[in-house]
Amino acid sequence: MSLQTDFKAPNNEFKTRVKESFDNQPLMDFLGAKLKIIEPGFCEIHLPYRFELTQQHGFFHAGMIGTIADNCGGYAAFSLMPADASVLTVEYKINLLSPGDGELIIGRGKVKKAGKTLTVCAVDVFVLKNGIEKLCATAQMTVMTMHGRADKQKS
Amino acid sequence: MSLQTDFKAPNNEFKTRVKESFDNQPLMDFLGAKLKIIEPGFCEIHLPYRFELTQQHGFFHAGMIGTIADNCGGYAAFSLMPADASVLTVEYKINLLSPGDGELIIGRGKVKKAGKTLTVCAVDVFVLKNGIEKLCATAQMTVMTMHGRADKQKS
Amino acid sequence: MSLQTDFKAPNNEFKTRVKESFDNQPLMDFLGAKLKIIEPGFCEIHLPYRFELTQQHGFFHAGMIGTIADNCGGYAAFSLMPADASVLTVEYKINLLSPGDGELIIGRGKVKKAGKTLTVCAVDVFVLKNGIEKLCATAQMTVMTMHGRADKQKS
Amino acid sequence: MSLQTDFKAPNNEFKTRVKESFDNQPLMDFLGAKLKIIEPGFCEIHLPYRFELTQQHGFFHAGMIGTIADNCGGYAAFSLMPADASVLTVEYKINLLSPGDGELIIGRGKVKKAGKTLTVCAVDVFVLKNGIEKLCATAQMTVMTMHGRADKQKS
Repeated sequence: MSLQTDFKAPNNEFKTRVKESFDNQPLMDFLGAKLKIIEPGFCEIHLPYRFELTQQHGFFHAGMIGTIADNCGGYAAFSLMPADASVLTVEYKINLLSPGDGELIIGRGKVKKAGKTLTVCAVDVFVLKNGIEKLCATAQMTVMTMHGRADKQKS
Repeated sequence: MSLQTDFKAPNNEFKTRVKESFDNQPLMDFLGAKLKIIEPGFCEIHLPYRFELTQQHGFFHAGMIGTIADNCGGYAAFSLMPADASVLTVEYKINLLSPGDGELIIGRGKVKKAGKTLTVCAVDVFVLKNGIEKLCATAQMTVMTMHGRADKQKS
Repeated sequence: MSLQTDFKAPNNEFKTRVKESFDNQPLMDFLGAKLKIIEPGFCEIHLPYRFELTQQHGFFHAGMIGTIADNCGGYAAFSLMPADASVLTVEYKINLLSPGDGELIIGRGKVKKAGKTLTVCAVDVFVLKNGIEKLCATAQMTVMTMHGRADKQKS
Repeated sequence: MSLQTDFKAPNNEFKTRVKESFDNQPLMDFLGAKLKIIEPGFCEIHLPYRFELTQQHGFFHAGMIGTIADNCGGYAAFSLMPADASVLTVEYKINLLSPGDGELIIGRGKVKKAGKTLTVCAVDVFVLKNGIEKLCATAQMTVMTMHGRADKQKS
């Protein structure tokens, strides 16, 4: 999956807006996830290994892989939304292809079709072990643009 | 969704086996999730509200809802598996129906079809607020029985 | 899956509107599908066996099962839509549980959550053989209400 | 989506086997679908427009788009299976991105991960209008290898 997309962000602030929204998710900090790349229609997030994030066989829990996939797709879509809109996950479907066995999870989400109301994204999740990336999950998701509701944390 | 299922567990130890597997998932303890009910083909898990589990609007993060759904379906399926088998999530699809706005997430997974290799589950996730349960997500998932690989933590 | 739903149709013409839309789908006539029951938030469609609808093992083709599931969910949702709206399938996910081996396919779709823009449906598809219904597929789908675009055939 | 895949077919007869299986599906002939390309881990199928295949707005019915997607993914997977195996669709999830408005539907399925028992495929479906291809649907599916059951029509 390459970084290049055919999309143009609708405003110059898209990187700042995605970064702010990500930083406003307490869960990302709690898990230790990092927003690494944000481009128009593309988002990459990393989640380093911690014992606390594993399942009964010592691998990354499927829920963590799904959580990162959800955020990659959501923020890839959000990068293309107008400044007065917020983002809502409608649904996602994820196939777990290999155990999450490694030091780092790398999620890469890409917009496949950006509509006025709905955006469809494809997300691949890789696990890095001894310097080698292996595809461990692939997801397809639908995201909704909530026009007129700027994305702010409840205060 | 009622607790009653048409399934019979294949061994008397199914409750102990599910409980042990759940307790062997460090993530469940880290998030604060509790295994509440396990019956043949059914599993209910609770996740109390914590600020650390929220997204930018102060609600439970979709990834947490997906994580609980995944485990409810997985353990509902695991309850029907033979003693020498472990459980693997093949894929799931989740629709987020309402914001995760409340004090507690309640996931209820039920086996819809138990096959020799693959089991299909339906999972509903509710959010409890002021004593009222509201459906916040619904999922459909496919789980694989790994025969001959007892479910033990990597040691 | 019972016929009873908690929904009320928003207009008295919902049965007529669904029937007209169904009759305006040339594919339904071509395949031989019949609209059997329409209630608020519920739709049942039948598809009798024909050699032309089968796959390489002589069973109903998965595409036929998916087609019936799509229409059951779509029309269950459409029954709850205002008179000036049309219905659009956003996405669906279907698990094939048993071969479509029998004389008749029976699809039953039910609205799980009806929102202003999006509606989520659950659909079960059964195959009837020697008078016995067997669950052969289960689907979860997202449908969109297209407000202000009455559902008419292109003319 | 390019034709190139990283896969090698396990036997020299894979093209013949896919072609025979496709020809043994009476539904494909009934709809008028054509198997156009089969390579290791890749399959392209075409379905020309006919009035009988449309929905109430005059476009290809979503069920037809799903049917072609299902077969593209299934045969992409089947091309990698051993000679004594048959193919079974476990589940698929499809997003409909644009109306099926055109003269021809073109489905292209590609294997994303081929496992011993389960194979995961990505399928894109395009609609051709006035010589221009437009992406109208994207699907993700899980296919099962049925070892020891050669794919033959029931006779």
